[in-house]
Parts: sequence; C-alpha cells; structure tokens
Amino acid sequence: MHFDAVDGPSAEIIDGKSIAAIIKSQVAIEIMRMKDAVGKQPCLVIVLVGERDDSHSFVHTKIKACDEVGISSSIVELHADCTEVEVLHVVSNLNKDPSVHGVIVQLPLPEHLDKEKIMDVSNPEKDVDGFHPSNMGCLAIKGREPLFVPCAAKSCIDVLLRSGIEVSGKNVVVIGRSKIVGLPVSLLLQASSHCEFCAFIHQNPQEITLEADIVITDVGVPNMVRGNWLKPGAVVIDTGTNAVKDPNREHGFHLTGDVCFEEAVKVASIITPVPGGLGPVTISTLLSNTLDSAKRAYKFV
Amino acid sequence: MHFDAVDGPSAEIIDGKSIAAIIKSQVAIEIMRMKDAVGKQPCLVIVLVGERDDSHSFVHTKIKACDEVGISSSIVELHADCTEVEVLHVVSNLNKDPSVHGVIVQLPLPEHLDKEKIMDVSNPEKDVDGFHPSNMGCLAIKGREPLFVPCAAKSCIDVLLRSGIEVSGKNVVVIGRSKIVGLPVSLLLQASSHCEFCAFIHQNPQEITLEADIVITDVGVPNMVRGNWLKPGAVVIDTGTNAVKDPNREHGFHLTGDVCFEEAVKVASIITPVPGGLGPVTISTLLSNTLDSAKRAYKFV
Repeated sequence: MHFDAVDGPSAEIIDGKSIAAIIKSQVAIEIMRMKDAVGKQPCLVIVLVGERDDSHSFVHTKIKACDEVGISSSIVELHADCTEVEVLHVVSNLNKDPSVHGVIVQLPLPEHLDKEKIMDVSNPEKDVDGFHPSNMGCLAIKGREPLFVPCAAKSCIDVLLRSGIEVSGKNVVVIGRSKIVGLPVSLLLQASSHCEFCAFIHQNPQEITLEADIVITDVGVPNMVRGNWLKPGAVVIDTGTNAVKDPNREHGFHLTGDVCFEEAVKVASIITPVPGGLGPVTISTLLSNTLDSAKRAYKFV
Repeated sequence: MHFDAVDGPSAEIIDGKSIAAIIKSQVAIEIMRMKDAVGKQPCLVIVLVGERDDSHSFVHTKIKACDEVGISSSIVELHADCTEVEVLHVVSNLNKDPSVHGVIVQLPLPEHLDKEKIMDVSNPEKDVDGFHPSNMGCLAIKGREPLFVPCAAKSCIDVLLRSGIEVSGKNVVVIGRSKIVGLPVSLLLQASSHCEFCAFIHQNPQEITLEADIVITDVGVPNMVRGNWLKPGAVVIDTGTNAVKDPNREHGFHLTGDVCFEEAVKVASIITPVPGGLGPVTISTLLSNTLDSAKRAYKFV
C-alpha cells in the first residue's frame, strides 16, 4: 500500500497490460519453438453470427492478439438470420478439421438460435473458452482436470500469483457465479484447497466481504462494491466491464468495474482497475489456451 | 424440537425409511401408468467388476429396490482381472441398447482400470448416478439443467423439502465436496439461489457451522461434527456412512455418520440418523432417476 500526502493511503494498482505483455511474450516464444520443432502453428477460429458492433469489436481484439503472438486465426461470419442447422454445420466442420485447435462461438447469439445446443455440439478438445459442460464438470469434480479453464477465471488466479499474493489459508470471497468467472474461479479455489473459505453470495454481500482477505467480483453492476464493504488491506480483483453512459466520451460511454474504484483504492492493499486490469490478461489467456490445445494436438511438450 | 424430562431437549429424528417408502410408491404408480400407456417399463443395468463383498451387497440392495417398484434390472458381472477394453465394450453396448435406461458402473473399480475413462464413455442420457462430467457441468452452470442429479445430493434437498424445512434465506453449510454429495448439493443450493450462503470448508469448520441454520455433512469421518459445532435449533443432514469396528455386532462393525448423533440430537431441531436417514432415500432417488430416464426415452409425460 502506498501513502499519498493529500489523500491518505492508496492501494497498489495492478497493471493488467504489463501482465498480458509477459504472457503474450511467453506464448510467442513457445509458438516459435513449436514451429521449429514440428513445423506447425496454433489456429483459432471464431464463429461470428450477426452484425453486433460490440461483438465485432471483441472479435477483432482477439484476432489482433493472435497476430501478435503467431497464432493463425480466422472469422467465419454468418448472417444474423442464418439457421441453427447452418451454425451446427459450421461448428461440426471445425470440430473435424485437424488444423484448427480452438473454436469460439462469439456470444451473444441471435435469439432464434439455441445457444446451449450449439455449445454442446462444440468439441471439448477445442473449447478454448472452457464453457463446455464436460470441461466445467471436470473443473468441478475433485481429482479431474478440465482440458480448458475459462480465460477470465484462469486470469484471476494468474494475476494473484504473478502479483505475489498467497491464496492458501486466506478468506477469499467471490461475488457472482457466472460460467465466465464466478463459477470457475470458485471451483478453482475450492478444488485446489487454496482457500479456507470461498462463497457465492446472494444477499447482504457486504457482511461477508468485510471478512475477506481477497474479493473477486463478477456481478455486472457498476460500482456495486463500495469502499466500506472492504476490510482494510484487502486484495480486490474486479472482473466487471460495465458500459456506463457518458456524453463526454467519443463513443458515448465509459467502462467501469463492479467496484467503486475511487473508494476501494483507499481501503484495499492491491486492486485491479477497469479498464486495464483483468481484461488484457483474459485475452492473453485465450492465446495461452489455444497454444495448449495445439500442443496437445501435436503431442508437443 | 421435543423435550425429554430426563435428558432435556431432543431433535426430531427424520425417518428416512418412511420418506423412501413414499418415493418408492410414487415411482411404482408412475411405472404402472407408463406400462399401461406405452407398454414399457424402466430398465437399470449395473456393471460390477470383481468380487468385493461390500460392492455385491450395495448392488443387491439396488436390484431388490428395483424389483419392489417394477423396474427391470440386471447385473453384468466381470472378473476382477478383466481388461479395460472389456469394460468399455460392455458400457458401449449398454449405451446403444434402447431398452436400457440407466447404467451404473459400481465403484470402486479394480486399480488397473481407468475409472475416469470408463465414466467418460458412459452415455450422459443413461447416467442415473449423475456423475458424468457433462451432467455435473450442467448442474454447475447457471441456467443449464443436467439430465440427472447425483442421488444422495438430490435426496438431501428432498429430505429438507419433505420435512417442511424452508431453505430460502437460510445459512446452509456443506462440509466436504465429493462428487457424490458435497459438490452437487452445494451446486443445487447455489444454482437455485435458495440459500443465502453456502460454503465448502477446509479448515476450522466449527467456526462456520456454528453460524449455520442447516448443516450438511459429506466427510467420511465418524462422529467428526460434535454437538458444540452446532447452533441450537440447527437442521442436520448427515450423509456419512462410516463403518466402525464393533466386536459386538454380527459383521464386526456398525455404521455411523459424520455427526456425533448423541450430542447433536440434543442441540439440533431436526436430524437425520445413520443408518436409517439419508441412505434409504438415496436408493429411492436412484429408482426415481431411472424412471425419469425411461420417461424421457419414451417421451412419456
């Protein structure tokens, strides 16, 4: 924790971009090593249905990141009014293609498509998002190992470890239980017995967060976690990326986390900002998952 | 809670056999209705590898229960030294047989067999034990529905509901996280948002259990949970079935739970005994899962 002469104590702010850069360089080195050894590179394909601006933006961020590290990538674009059979056919072909190691179906899908049916058809061996039920099941069951862990959840643990934060024996509280972060990060913490206590909270979360050494948020509510919810010195990992209307910004909104940063930074010892915290790390973890898949496919250690 | 003139207060003891009898009669009525309507009955097949006395005893209890309600059943017995390929072949044939609705591979398996590989090959649509990763994953993921929920976990919830215990808004603590009870029962409670707070505990469980309105144990340690771990008036669901050496008994042991019953019965308001508590309900739930599978197969509502 730092001390500012005017504003009092201030938490160390985790630089997600730096951590992401380190992960990317490690992935890039491994990919060069793989190319030299087996003459192959990892390949990620993203299935994008419809013309949502935000989805296009997310997909292009992923593609750009792939380019940076040497992962070949492509987008299969389908019209917003395509049939479910068409999507299933695309996914099924990608499942069978041995040159493809990671397949992502970009969410959300148009409402006429059965998201669950499409996810279930995906090959768990190419499920670099880690959302397939069988991968989530293996993550949940003690003694099993999933082929992939959801990127944002893996990033939370990674950020803690790379920031030198000891998890073992600590009170960790996870607020929210989406399949993207809350559920898998809780399962990771529980499975490894790294945390003394880890809970999903539905009501009165502040009663519990005040006891926590580490708070991980996954709620999608801007600034929900206030400074007075936190124990002084707590570690705060904020996975929220909430768009808040802001006429002063070019696109008419700014991104904010689940945590009221201005308050929390004065109470916490370490905190991830939004943007620039967990987001960049999560993209790098997707690259790392895709590399892992290619390594498995080519039995390259 | 009752009051005994000599010993003080005493909890209501849940009669698992009575609850099991009610479930069985409901299953039997449904099976008769299905037979009349579509001329079919549910069928459960148990794959039993080796000659362990305890496994044989468990399997015969299940077969006897099937007979009682009108589920046809059979045992495929394999030698303890059979190959993995043989087991996979048996499971694979049962997966394909449309007259079979439930398949159980009795655990534990001999050590030379890869339990996980065999479980993963099982058809999730016939996974009446609910242990397949894809069923566990669907149980974990918010908004998904597994085809089957593990019998003991489903029985915990059923016992609470049938005993008129409101779960919503209560502090529920689950000790232990096996795939048989602790993990799925926690997921059930979390998924339905029925509980305010639900935790797996690794260290100092008594600090947490003392706050709990409902304690569910899944630890496999005889008498671990003492009376002074419980809040007065707590509800206690004991899923432990631990064999404790006892020269005074015919078989040289008696069964005991994870909870020190003699102490807990004086503190709790409601408690399940061992034996005669959750055990019989779990067997009935297996019958109910097998019926559900057959109903799904024949599209019988």
